[in-house]
Amino acid sequence: MTKIYLAGPDVFLPDAVDVGRRKVALCARHGLIGLYPLENAVDRAANDASLQIFRGNEAMMIEADAIIANLTPFRGPGADAGTVYELGYMAGRGKLCVGYSNDPSSYADRVREFTRVNSRDGRLVDASGLTVENFGLTDNLMMIHALDLHGCALMTPRQAPADIWHDLVAFESCVRMVAERIASAPARASS
Amino acid sequence: MTKIYLAGPDVFLPDAVDVGRRKVALCARHGLIGLYPLENAVDRAANDASLQIFRGNEAMMIEADAIIANLTPFRGPGADAGTVYELGYMAGRGKLCVGYSNDPSSYADRVREFTRVNSRDGRLVDASGLTVENFGLTDNLMMIHALDLHGCALMTPRQAPADIWHDLVAFESCVRMVAERIASAPARASS
Repeated sequence: MTKIYLAGPDVFLPDAVDVGRRKVALCARHGLIGLYPLENAVDRAANDASLQIFRGNEAMMIEADAIIANLTPFRGPGADAGTVYELGYMAGRGKLCVGYSNDPSSYADRVREFTRVNSRDGRLVDASGLTVENFGLTDNLMMIHALDLHGCALMTPRQAPADIWHDLVAFESCVRMVAERIASAPARASS
Repeated sequence: MTKIYLAGPDVFLPDAVDVGRRKVALCARHGLIGLYPLENAVDRAANDASLQIFRGNEAMMIEADAIIANLTPFRGPGADAGTVYELGYMAGRGKLCVGYSNDPSSYADRVREFTRVNSRDGRLVDASGLTVENFGLTDNLMMIHALDLHGCALMTPRQAPADIWHDLVAFESCVRMVAERIASAPARASS
């Protein structure tokens, strides 16, 4: 049965375990196994707790056939770095890459909320003088086009839901997409 | 000759081309070929400019033997998402992963500068109620331990240099590390 690595800053929520259970249940409803990072056994008091977490997450990714990445902006204008690393890792291994963001606004608009933005030679620049990517995409082009080319286009709601950290409508669209892709894959259809 | 993909938000600097030339020259001084993303030919006025950039970067990564990622905090408490994606991609492909940050402070300390931080059940939480990783690491554990296990530990200066975007001392330490690793790799030493 197809396994999906459930990446996202969901693990940092106060009710992280519950959110993971809801995600795994939605996967099961579509005939898929969701692998949620918090299910790795880690002794959080150990000196090497962070390394144990890394090893657990990496093993889960190697085991999984696909990733669904929650790319909802986290602690700044863009996605959570840990999640983005994992998306890259799965793309590098040739796995099916799907993702969603519960914030449909453009990256450039979100940078404007976080920092003063100016124009230089017709380009947007931030307060430090660094160019702001302004292709109208919802986040950095590496993630957005990785999804386009290694899975399917980023799923976003038309409007941000009231609770961006608990609304799982866009997540379920991703699950449905993975289930359809798997069902239509010739090699798997015969098994 | 060994090729290194030079990842980082350096491409967003006003003098991005010059910084790239300096990095490529430092690689050459150590007998390595630096591949700098801005050297890809892209028609920035084209409708699919962002996709062209993605394809160019991905082709460069596939061609490269190693990555040196500039993980200096960018537009928030952590590293640039595009760079982090690329680090994950190279780790997923089993390439040598090396990185540096010109800001040696801990991730948790940097989050404190960006948002109000509280404590809940002995854990740090940000203004949105999400847990703040607090292992004393300089950034998200996925990147830090990816470097530990797929290359070598993150290079940081003892103190942040005056110009975090142009000081290349930590970058050159990375170049030296890659040159040493390549020189000591048995398969390559015989060629």
